[in-house]
Amino acid sequence: MVVVMERNSTQAQIEAVNARLGNLGFHAQLIRGIKRIVIGAVGDCPTNDLHALQQMPGVEKIIPIMKPYKLVSRECKHDNTVINVRGINIGSSNVTVIAGPCAVENRQQLITAARQVKAAGGHIIRGGAFKPRTSPYSFQGLEEEGLKILREASLETGLPVVTEVIDEASLEMALDYVDIVQIGARNMQNFRLLKAVGQIDKPVLLKRGMSATIEEWLMAAEYIMSGGNGQVILCERGIRTFETATRNTLDLSAVPLVKRLSHLPVIVDPSHGTGDRGLVQPMSLAAVAAGADGLIVEMHPEPAKALSDGPQSLTPGELEQVMIQLAMLTPVLGRQLSLGHVSRESAWKGVRL
Amino acid sequence: MVVVMERNSTQAQIEAVNARLGNLGFHAQLIRGIKRIVIGAVGDCPTNDLHALQQMPGVEKIIPIMKPYKLVSRECKHDNTVINVRGINIGSSNVTVIAGPCAVENRQQLITAARQVKAAGGHIIRGGAFKPRTSPYSFQGLEEEGLKILREASLETGLPVVTEVIDEASLEMALDYVDIVQIGARNMQNFRLLKAVGQIDKPVLLKRGMSATIEEWLMAAEYIMSGGNGQVILCERGIRTFETATRNTLDLSAVPLVKRLSHLPVIVDPSHGTGDRGLVQPMSLAAVAAGADGLIVEMHPEPAKALSDGPQSLTPGELEQVMIQLAMLTPVLGRQLSLGHVSRESAWKGVRL
Amino acid sequence: MVVVMERNSTQAQIEAVNARLGNLGFHAQLIRGIKRIVIGAVGDCPTNDLHALQQMPGVEKIIPIMKPYKLVSRECKHDNTVINVRGINIGSSNVTVIAGPCAVENRQQLITAARQVKAAGGHIIRGGAFKPRTSPYSFQGLEEEGLKILREASLETGLPVVTEVIDEASLEMALDYVDIVQIGARNMQNFRLLKAVGQIDKPVLLKRGMSATIEEWLMAAEYIMSGGNGQVILCERGIRTFETATRNTLDLSAVPLVKRLSHLPVIVDPSHGTGDRGLVQPMSLAAVAAGADGLIVEMHPEPAKALSDGPQSLTPGELEQVMIQLAMLTPVLGRQLSLGHVSRESAWKGVRL
Amino acid sequence: MVVVMERNSTQAQIEAVNARLGNLGFHAQLIRGIKRIVIGAVGDCPTNDLHALQQMPGVEKIIPIMKPYKLVSRECKHDNTVINVRGINIGSSNVTVIAGPCAVENRQQLITAARQVKAAGGHIIRGGAFKPRTSPYSFQGLEEEGLKILREASLETGLPVVTEVIDEASLEMALDYVDIVQIGARNMQNFRLLKAVGQIDKPVLLKRGMSATIEEWLMAAEYIMSGGNGQVILCERGIRTFETATRNTLDLSAVPLVKRLSHLPVIVDPSHGTGDRGLVQPMSLAAVAAGADGLIVEMHPEPAKALSDGPQSLTPGELEQVMIQLAMLTPVLGRQLSLGHVSRESAWKGVRL
Repeated sequence: MVVVMERNSTQAQIEAVNARLGNLGFHAQLIRGIKRIVIGAVGDCPTNDLHALQQMPGVEKIIPIMKPYKLVSRECKHDNTVINVRGINIGSSNVTVIAGPCAVENRQQLITAARQVKAAGGHIIRGGAFKPRTSPYSFQGLEEEGLKILREASLETGLPVVTEVIDEASLEMALDYVDIVQIGARNMQNFRLLKAVGQIDKPVLLKRGMSATIEEWLMAAEYIMSGGNGQVILCERGIRTFETATRNTLDLSAVPLVKRLSHLPVIVDPSHGTGDRGLVQPMSLAAVAAGADGLIVEMHPEPAKALSDGPQSLTPGELEQVMIQLAMLTPVLGRQLSLGHVSRESAWKGVRL
Repeated sequence: MVVVMERNSTQAQIEAVNARLGNLGFHAQLIRGIKRIVIGAVGDCPTNDLHALQQMPGVEKIIPIMKPYKLVSRECKHDNTVINVRGINIGSSNVTVIAGPCAVENRQQLITAARQVKAAGGHIIRGGAFKPRTSPYSFQGLEEEGLKILREASLETGLPVVTEVIDEASLEMALDYVDIVQIGARNMQNFRLLKAVGQIDKPVLLKRGMSATIEEWLMAAEYIMSGGNGQVILCERGIRTFETATRNTLDLSAVPLVKRLSHLPVIVDPSHGTGDRGLVQPMSLAAVAAGADGLIVEMHPEPAKALSDGPQSLTPGELEQVMIQLAMLTPVLGRQLSLGHVSRESAWKGVRL
Repeated sequence: MVVVMERNSTQAQIEAVNARLGNLGFHAQLIRGIKRIVIGAVGDCPTNDLHALQQMPGVEKIIPIMKPYKLVSRECKHDNTVINVRGINIGSSNVTVIAGPCAVENRQQLITAARQVKAAGGHIIRGGAFKPRTSPYSFQGLEEEGLKILREASLETGLPVVTEVIDEASLEMALDYVDIVQIGARNMQNFRLLKAVGQIDKPVLLKRGMSATIEEWLMAAEYIMSGGNGQVILCERGIRTFETATRNTLDLSAVPLVKRLSHLPVIVDPSHGTGDRGLVQPMSLAAVAAGADGLIVEMHPEPAKALSDGPQSLTPGELEQVMIQLAMLTPVLGRQLSLGHVSRESAWKGVRL
Repeated sequence: MVVVMERNSTQAQIEAVNARLGNLGFHAQLIRGIKRIVIGAVGDCPTNDLHALQQMPGVEKIIPIMKPYKLVSRECKHDNTVINVRGINIGSSNVTVIAGPCAVENRQQLITAARQVKAAGGHIIRGGAFKPRTSPYSFQGLEEEGLKILREASLETGLPVVTEVIDEASLEMALDYVDIVQIGARNMQNFRLLKAVGQIDKPVLLKRGMSATIEEWLMAAEYIMSGGNGQVILCERGIRTFETATRNTLDLSAVPLVKRLSHLPVIVDPSHGTGDRGLVQPMSLAAVAAGADGLIVEMHPEPAKALSDGPQSLTPGELEQVMIQLAMLTPVLGRQLSLGHVSRESAWKGVRL
């Protein structure tokens, strides 16, 4: 930590800061600049002390040197964290694709979607049973009924499932049915919920908040890890900017940057990131080219009939195309994408570039 | 609602959209432009139908004409909503000032602060018992212990109290101790919590999310009102922008705009809005000049020792100055500010402009 | 300047940085932290050296301690700069109001507007002769013809005039006709133009760029001052954010912050800042309450017929109301606003609160 | 255009709007909604009329239906525009790489850099002779001396060169020396300059402004095209957002979106887009995967000694790696990248994934 003193700070003020730093267990060192005194303070700095110091007379500002997160940092753990979900290794050299509808609407829709995801070579099924919706008058999800349908789809296809939880009640319920629980963008700083998923022993897919900095996002992951759950999958899903031509601005440079700062796997959601079906395919390829460990993509058997997020859902045929293109792209990047039972020859034939 | 067809949409596509609109209960009317067909659709439009329509072949985009909120709108209720909290009328011509420390740290700190708020002429006490903190390693609040201290402060000073709740458990607990419950910026779209406070019969202070549009903010209020609780106080507390010189960018033009769109009272939080003690006084005056019904301001007996938000907390003396200046300013704006027991003469004498 | 070394930087790397700092004329001082080495470097730091240092092996980051601007800073000049424009003192305790139409459309419109500005008690006339327009198909201004009309209006009313210049040719032309030249938001970082107005001996009204940080804005003013022209009036006119309910987000907290950082006068443009006529009056009061030294407001004799920016232009009657309210508000803030020849009694009578 | 009337608009107001629309040459059609009257207006709508209409009593808002740009739109010209620069076809299936230092610092630096670009397989050389710098105290470029060095580098390597112009004087000078002129982000709405490059017969590389919407960016291109110059290359270079971990937020979804809206070629600048050398390689691959027609990348013979933008400049070796990876990636995407004289075999050998 570096304490910058005001230009006209007095000797008494400087000594007071020095003394305070000493009491807090810091080792202080003075640097006399041309116009300012700067004090280097060596030691571990709890946030509260930092605030207090900033209030002392003569102090202009405090500059922290160390990152506020620890457990999630690559300094703390050098090797990539690989999260095994029933044999699927998220964060390994394999690229993982999660797909499915925004919401579980009914049994038939979800089972159909799950079969289509499997047929396209997808690895994990997604589907929302608890939907955080901007309007109280919109469809809010099937809740436990939806979770049961998700489990049935998982049993039938053999694919794991992920679903969003929105509070402790829905979390408790979901644990009986799904393989991965998702914390949505709106709940990224719902610290109660973060602490709750820090206690479970299932992987957590943590979406970036729509106005969260990368540091805040990693701090949210730190909440989960500090609770004891190290299985965190980070998910970039677009941030809110002035640009309204897309639903959000997909921040793909966050992918290589977070992989530099943290050992956790990072996936990308090009569906919410763009809100535009026609942009999902190019941004899926771009995400993987940028180093993403996987994708979470919306696909609906009939997007035109979707109860939510229709405009950004791929059709089953479009998902197939994306999977095949990813299978071709990944080897160039030193990675792989398994197409499951889909034969490589038929895949190659199907591709339209 | 207006449906804009693609330039090269076919007659069959146009007819299909027309038929669909008919089935949904809309009355459709065709407008043949020079390059495009536009269909005006008269009727009430649930969001889901809107999504579905947007997916139909030949449709370029859907433009909604009506606002998505109803109960909070001034169209729905013309007169200002005035919320009575133990005799204090929020939303009336009286300007209300809520003040107190960010967090309840201990009994002495809070009781001292409460007395200072009263002495300065403040109307309501604030203090956090449940603190949503970015870092899991920061002070998280005294919880029920804090609520008890708040009630004691209220009994002693006779001032009502407001505190933030962060989930259903803390809400239930708080109802026994406080007069107003606050939904913080990070929980503005925690829809479970919004529904829960929609069921209570105490006023709710709803902060704007740090990246929430005015429409989303009003939709969050609509969640509460549609649950049956009409006592919603909106609070502008700054939005996240590219500017980092202030903690947030206080969006004061939201005040007159929201008052045009809605009948609900609007107050301003210049402490979180700027994050800078030196800016709280000018922005308090500016907020009231812009038409705010009140302020919520952080004040700490000793900001330099605050466990959180010290840099933006006023000292008791600074709060007094702000109160006096507001008392002088409000009559010019056709409003009043009661300074309680503080004598007007002593107040006038104390003012430094 | 503080140089933060990487966690695993070597002794050799540290010595290399030390040596480099020595060569650059810095005095370096080592601080050994628990996990990192930090080097305090005392001396004046040209940007280029900073870049170079950041590239050295083992360096994690460079943290500058000093502000990059000098001449505009309050550290450099403690007292407020007051700019005298034909007897009107911008930056004094008097609040200055500049008003007029967005564009000079024709002689009659501008002369009428100028008379109305004077009748309302306004101090300076504005009007654009060179219009930077988003669309090449929009009205682009009357150019020199417009400047002549502005001068005529000035002669008739006795009020000074300000107009925007957009390049060196328009600047040279404008100097013969106007009292203040304006640099628009889009040209805030047109460094050629900044250098050019740095050479003139007339005041420059420098608008903040729509995505400019406060630091960049002050650096733009530094360009002008470093060229030799100290008569710079800063103008906050709203920044671009995610919120689309207003044309821009008026950043009023920039006013007291800039006045803390700089000695230059700061005025506010609530017309462009909101883009909404109904918000101009409350935000004018708010701006002055926040400490602004003046306002620049759009007023049009007949807003419904304006060739540009009609929706945000006040009518003459609305301008009068704003002037009267400001005249009542300023004494409360320890300032004054002259209403010119307008009698105080008739003013008081006219006010509607 | 659609005119939405206020809820309580009168019959007389509606008729007045109708009459006005008639006078303006529109064909008006009334839609009576449940709560509002909406008027569809068929015809071509100049911006000015739109503003005037918005001011009429009873009008709530105007919703334009058509895009404001014409010549740049894909509706206007269906096929991709391919721009031929001395045999290099920008916008074809070939991916084009422009590389070189931020600034021309001296003859040796630039000639060395140019040779390195050619050796790596790059297609066009970049280098700045006129530098728009935030600080008046930073290096501002070699001006004509720099242009001469660029031409020499071009003659020696046989590669075309691009350089930024910042006003009409620098443009006129540059035309004698370079193949492509660049309009920088800060000048994207310098309409004078846009009109000037609309008159030349050389290609223009138009960077997106740091807070420009996609629509404003295309309108800037419209300025150039409406002046008669159809050779516009659009360049995404990152937008300003709340995230400060990267210098800008590279908006890669703008690439496929702009290619849908316009026929013009789109390239990406990952150097300014991220400001971080370590992110340039992954974002280069991602940009091409997203559909970019090319890249403009900063490379410096010795980044640590660069006079500007050192932290984001690749080394020659890093550029080579990027080129080889792009050569491997493009065939998967149905495109090609020529490595010039570099033998494919040696290239393959050199690659590190």
